Formats: sequence, C-alpha cells, structure tokens
Amino acid sequence: MWRRLTENALASSFVAASCQYGPSRGSDRLVNALADYFNRKYSWGVTGKNIVVGSGSQMLCFAAAALFAGPSPGGLKRIVLPFIPDYAGYHNLSLSADGVVGISRKVEFRDGRYFRYAMDYDALRLQPDIGLIILSSPCNPTGGGADANDVDALISIAEEQDCVVLIDHAYGAPFPQVAEALAPPVWHKNVINCFSISKAGLPGERIGFAIGAEHHVDAMVSFMANSALHAPQLPQVVLARALETGEIDYLAESVIRPYYSVKRSVAEKLLFENLPESVDWRLHTSQGGMFCWLWIRDSWFDDNSLYLLLKRKRVIIVPGRHFFVDPRRAEAHDTHCFRISIAGDEAATEEGIRRIAEGLEDLRCGYGR
Amino acid sequence: MWRRLTENALASSFVAASCQYGPSRGSDRLVNALADYFNRKYSWGVTGKNIVVGSGSQMLCFAAAALFAGPSPGGLKRIVLPFIPDYAGYHNLSLSADGVVGISRKVEFRDGRYFRYAMDYDALRLQPDIGLIILSSPCNPTGGGADANDVDALISIAEEQDCVVLIDHAYGAPFPQVAEALAPPVWHKNVINCFSISKAGLPGERIGFAIGAEHHVDAMVSFMANSALHAPQLPQVVLARALETGEIDYLAESVIRPYYSVKRSVAEKLLFENLPESVDWRLHTSQGGMFCWLWIRDSWFDDNSLYLLLKRKRVIIVPGRHFFVDPRRAEAHDTHCFRISIAGDEAATEEGIRRIAEGLEDLRCGYGR
Repeated sequence: MWRRLTENALASSFVAASCQYGPSRGSDRLVNALADYFNRKYSWGVTGKNIVVGSGSQMLCFAAAALFAGPSPGGLKRIVLPFIPDYAGYHNLSLSADGVVGISRKVEFRDGRYFRYAMDYDALRLQPDIGLIILSSPCNPTGGGADANDVDALISIAEEQDCVVLIDHAYGAPFPQVAEALAPPVWHKNVINCFSISKAGLPGERIGFAIGAEHHVDAMVSFMANSALHAPQLPQVVLARALETGEIDYLAESVIRPYYSVKRSVAEKLLFENLPESVDWRLHTSQGGMFCWLWIRDSWFDDNSLYLLLKRKRVIIVPGRHFFVDPRRAEAHDTHCFRISIAGDEAATEEGIRRIAEGLEDLRCGYGR
Repeated sequence: MWRRLTENALASSFVAASCQYGPSRGSDRLVNALADYFNRKYSWGVTGKNIVVGSGSQMLCFAAAALFAGPSPGGLKRIVLPFIPDYAGYHNLSLSADGVVGISRKVEFRDGRYFRYAMDYDALRLQPDIGLIILSSPCNPTGGGADANDVDALISIAEEQDCVVLIDHAYGAPFPQVAEALAPPVWHKNVINCFSISKAGLPGERIGFAIGAEHHVDAMVSFMANSALHAPQLPQVVLARALETGEIDYLAESVIRPYYSVKRSVAEKLLFENLPESVDWRLHTSQGGMFCWLWIRDSWFDDNSLYLLLKRKRVIIVPGRHFFVDPRRAEAHDTHCFRISIAGDEAATEEGIRRIAEGLEDLRCGYGR
C-alpha cells in the first residue's frame, strides 16, 4: 500500500512536493485531510489551526519539550513521565540536566502470571514544577497505557498546574492499532495528541503530527520553522492520500491489528510453555503489541546479567532499567524487568523464548551472575 | 534528474529505506558516498565518522547551536554571526534570549555602483563568550561570503576562543554552485562544513549533511537521535546515487551555475537600465546567485516604506533589516538595504525591476514615506 501510494505521489506531485519548500505547519492538503479524518472519527471539531506535521513524532515531542518545559522565569519546568517504564526516547528530550523526572507507578497483580502497572495519581500530584507530562499510550515497552480514568486524572493535574499533557499514540488509535488503546484520544485544551505512521509501515520517511489547542500548536509550528523548516513533503502527499481514501483504516483494522493480536497470542503461549515453573515471572497485560514486558521477582535476577548471558546465546533482549529515565539510579524493580520483541517470524520468536528460558535457568543456578 | 533518481530509489530500495528505521548518522551508503566524494574532490581524508546527515541543513545548524552555544557552566555561550547581513534563519537558532549576536561589517566601495562587505576581524576578536560562529558562504542575501583570508581569520579566532565555526555552503561549492564561492570548503578541526541539496533542486525532502571533527559530529549524531531519530531515508538513497554517478557535479557545473550566471547578468543589466540616476544606489558584488542586494544611500530611504509601497504595486522585496539579527535594533545602514529575487523568469524580473525603479522615484518624491 505505501509503495503504491508513494509511486502515485511521485507521478502526480513530485515537482510541487519535492522540488519546493513547504509550509512549516505541514502541507495544506495533509493538514485538511487530518482535520477531516479526526472530526469524522472523534467528532472533535478541529481545523488546520489545531494541527502541526513534524519530521516524525519524536521531533514533535522534542519541540514540545523545548517549548513547554525547560528554564523559565520561575525556575526549571520539568518533563514528567507519569507512568514509567516508558519509551526510552523521552529520557533525553531535555536540554537541561535533571530536566526529566519519572513517577513510579503501582503494581496490580492479576490472575495467574499477569500483572499491570497502575498510575500513582497521588505521587504525580506531589510533583512540583511540571512543564510537560508525556507518555506513550499504548505504552512501549509494556503494552499498557492510560485508561479513561488515567486521562481524566492527567487532565485535572494539568489544569491545576497549568501544564501540558502530551499523549503519544504511536502504537495505538486510530492507527496503527499495533496494540489496543485502553482509551481513545481525547480532545482537551491542555492535551496535545501526537500520532505517527512509523508503526503503520513508513518509519524511514519520518512523518508524525500533533493535534492540540491553537496556541500550543502555533508555538510548535514556529519551532518547526526555526529548527527544521518543515517535514519532508512527498510522504505528506502519501499520508494525505491514505487518509482521504480510508486505506489507512483498512490497514490498521484489517491488517495490523489482527497481525499483532496473533503475534501476542503465540508469544504468550510460548512463554507459558517454555519459561521455568521455578522462576517467579510475571507478564504485563496487553492486547496485541510488538513487545512482551516481563518481571522476574526472584532476588537472584538482574536484567543486565540476563542481557549479557543471552547475547552469548545470540538473543537480544532490552534490560528493563533503560525504560526508567536514569539507569544509573535504577530502583530494585527497574532491574528486575526486561522487554522482548515478538514482531519477528514465529520460528525466531519460539527459538528466542526457548533460549530466554534457558538463560533464566542458567542465571537461577548462579551462572552468569 | 531528481525525479529519475527518486523513481530508481523507489524501485530498488523502498522496503529497505522507507519501511525501516535508519541510523541517526545517516545511511551507511550515503555516508560512505559522501566521504568518497569529498576525499576525491578536496583530498580531505575524512571517513564516515566525520559525517552526519540531517533533516535539512537548518536542522544541523539548529543542532550545532544547541550543542556548541547556549547555557554553560561559565555563562551563556553565544551564537555569533560574523558577517551580517546574513540568512534570517540563523536569528532564531538560540533557545536563550540574547543568544545570537551579529557583528557589523565594513563596507568597501568598488568601481561604479558596486560595493562589498568586508569582515571586521577586530570587532570579532573583541566579542566575548563565543560558542558558535555561523555564516552562509556564499551569503544569502548578499551573494558575497568568506574569502580565504576570512576563513583563516575565523579559524584563528576559533582556536583562540576554543569555539566552533559552522560554514553553511547551501548556495556554494561543491554543489549547488548557485553563486560562486570565494573560497572552497576547508578542513579544520574547529570547522563544521554544512551542505544542502535544497538549492540543487530537492528542498521539499529535507536533506542536508555536515562534515567536521569526530567529537563535534558525534555530538550532532546524538542530537539527531534524541530530537528526530534520523533524516528521511528515500532521499538519502537518491543523494547517494547522485554522488556515486557524478550526476550532481554535472548538474551543478553544467546546469545550475550557468543558469544563475545568466540570471545575474540579466538582472544587473536591468538594474543599470532602469534604476533612476537620481538615486544613490549600490549593488553588492556577486557571481551568480538567486538575489541582488541593494543599498540606497539617500537619507529619504527606508526599507519598510519601500516594501509597503511595492506591495501595492504587486512586487515583493525583502526589507534589509530582517537580515540583521534583531530588526527592532536596526542601525541606519540596516534599514537602507533590500533584497530582490532574480530566480524567476526574465519577463517577471524585468517588470519587477521596472516597478522597483518607479517605487524608488515615488519614495524620493515623498510619496509612501
């Protein structure tokens, strides 16, 4: 689909798109297509003035971080991650030392081997000097995220503290639907919703967009103008067409969502079949997703040790501590988790999980510690 | 050429380029092609470790500004523009108030109606707290730029103050050659050379690259990783191919340079034929270029008044003050200049210059002041 749309864009729009500078907000066609799409889907009533297209959603998060957090006349306003573990790409968004703070969450045990994190509203309310609250939802790495109560709580804190909440829907609704969103994107004057087409299949061309209040979005457009002029233009034609024809909905609902739903089911089955009974392992709940987030409660466990041990077995996992803002200040829980990728083919996932099981046994028996 | 190369890239590399994340430094193929090209052309002996590809050269300038200037333990390090008037896109590169300083230059009169700016080394040497010196060469708006003596002086100041010089070759050598460079790019540990393919015909896709010392470039690669992940990838395949085949040299030398050389000759001829004898106008010297930079020495002149007057005649010029860092603090000279674009077709340029001549007469006679 993306190849065909790119071929069409090249044939129809190359000179107008690639051989000209474009608007810092994004091309008129794409901005209008986005407004129509989100108004149709969520009845938001937004216009082009509520939208900014960026060179990937990372760039939009970076712009928001520079604009809404950082040095201010009243002191350093912080970037607050309310729901760590969260995407490692947020940890270096600040140009100030100590500019990013993570709020520890609570753990809720579920039936059997399952658990989930729950947002700690009280801890978040006690955090002073918030400039920007940022979170991925659905979450990389856990596949969890903010539910409707969480979003309400974040909005009420943002209203109290007069700060901005940026919700990054890179894995969720309305597309790509890699993982199931626990709450749909919400329109509110304190919220910037950030979206990406990377996980829908076009990560290499760097297109993301944000939708929010005019005065927030205007500042982001100016930031784009000063820092990058504008996002690449041919992929903007491609995305506009995917929205206008509805193909992006077909892709998300009929291709991507079922694909990752099966991946997740298979991975869970493999984990239950392979991981040793003797290990106290827990799996974060998720519907779909590219990852499984595992927590090993045994005291002998260390995420870096498992990483090094599995590397020798030619399996790469990501040690959990890297999703907790500052790995050097990791708490006990932070070093007892790891992320595995389940997006590869089934044979690779099966062999990987088999070796992870081996690695856990090795580590339990004192090898690799 | 760009369309054909983009079609080829799409046919050969779409999945590998567009449907995958890429390296923050730039694709291996492009980085290697750039190292080969610059070593062949200038005998620099650089490797991929000296190169970073960015989402346009504006983004690379922004990264350098954030890294090498701004708050530091010893106080605010400034971005210094040593040769104003210069590109307006540099004026907002700082996230700190008063982060950008412009150094006034000297004026050298040449035969007839011509003049040029000369860099004021003494004024530059007196500037404290330099973090980053930045200039376009050839210069937008004047078509002038740094000659070999200027580059030597900048390097010696950079060595004394342990700061970085970023030279932006967006209009110059080795491509696009829109205007003639007074000095070729120079390799030095304190210099970052920044290049773009925008003026070679592909502005919409946002590809630029920088070549410099490893420790500077490494920091810029990390900045790209945190702020934008990486530059768009399909256009990187396109540029790599243009370098590998030598087509970019053919384009610059046989198409772009002669095109703008003729544009400039025609524009100069039209200026001499049309501008009133009664006006004390001067033209900044340039070989080629997209612009003419005019200085009106008469006391009745004001750049904004001319702008407003010509807008009513449906001609757009850019008032000179916008190229002097802070238009609100413009000095007398800064408001006595304006930039005209000569890249359009000849009939439009001719009609535009005819109306500018009319506008100057109107202003001289007191109309529009």
